[in-house]
Amino acid sequence: MLIMGVDPGIAISGYGIISNEQSNCYVVEYGVIRTPPKLAMPYRLKQIHEGYIELIQKYKPDVVAVEELFFNKNAKTIISVGQARGVAVLAAALSKIEVFEYTPLQVKQAVVGYGRADKQQVQQMIKTSFNLEELPKPDDAADALAVALCHMNSYKLRNIMDGRGF
Amino acid sequence: MLIMGVDPGIAISGYGIISNEQSNCYVVEYGVIRTPPKLAMPYRLKQIHEGYIELIQKYKPDVVAVEELFFNKNAKTIISVGQARGVAVLAAALSKIEVFEYTPLQVKQAVVGYGRADKQQVQQMIKTSFNLEELPKPDDAADALAVALCHMNSYKLRNIMDGRGF
Repeated sequence: MLIMGVDPGIAISGYGIISNEQSNCYVVEYGVIRTPPKLAMPYRLKQIHEGYIELIQKYKPDVVAVEELFFNKNAKTIISVGQARGVAVLAAALSKIEVFEYTPLQVKQAVVGYGRADKQQVQQMIKTSFNLEELPKPDDAADALAVALCHMNSYKLRNIMDGRGF
Repeated sequence: MLIMGVDPGIAISGYGIISNEQSNCYVVEYGVIRTPPKLAMPYRLKQIHEGYIELIQKYKPDVVAVEELFFNKNAKTIISVGQARGVAVLAAALSKIEVFEYTPLQVKQAVVGYGRADKQQVQQMIKTSFNLEELPKPDDAADALAVALCHMNSYKLRNIMDGRGF
């Protein structure tokens, strides 16, 4: 199974693609889509949307995983992140790829094991889980890998609970 | 000039298309795109996006006008409206149509003449300006017509200020 985690934002949108074949789990690719601050909002949204469409066409992920938005950010941030998130999720929907949403708490629990883990612990766990030589940078790419890993672990757990093994 | 005003939301997205040829100004069409509450969010966003794409292809507006989001709504509402707004604005950007954004204050000032106008005054002014027999319903369609009218008035004003007439 190929999972693409996404962490959309207006200026920087992260992505992390992981593969999970039998017990072999590894990072296929990660990175970010950047949009120039001087570009008008509609065209920044277009670049984000087309960036994700391109990644979907290139890697053909089976699912897309995305973190639900924090409610404690300021309203202006929420609006711009909300718009970016909308066009990212749309890229998956138009490509007929199922989207799974996870809360920040679920991501931390699934990646580190408990919900109060800090950012560094999440990043360290990403590095360890995928046997990476260094921490994925920037944070947006690491966050995208975290939500992809969250989906993988949740998916395994659901299969175990259903008695299907993994 | 054909202007499409949009008022996007997850459940109901309004649109209002107005034409402004010389001194003749009239409503071409208005209405809403509805998405079923039971549908998963990515597919609701897809329906909204495709709904606006369809309208753009059918009416071929020269510009799209959209109201900026209120900051005083609750965070959950802002996130879902933000996502809907993102895919609506994307529809215009992908169709290479210029998007103009107006604050709620600008819409009221441009439509009614002062920024503290209430919803009813805005709707009444829409009815009068376009010589409609009844108030456009639902509110989302009326709001979309209001932002389209706001763009038309602002555009005329800019031309007068620039000494180009209208």
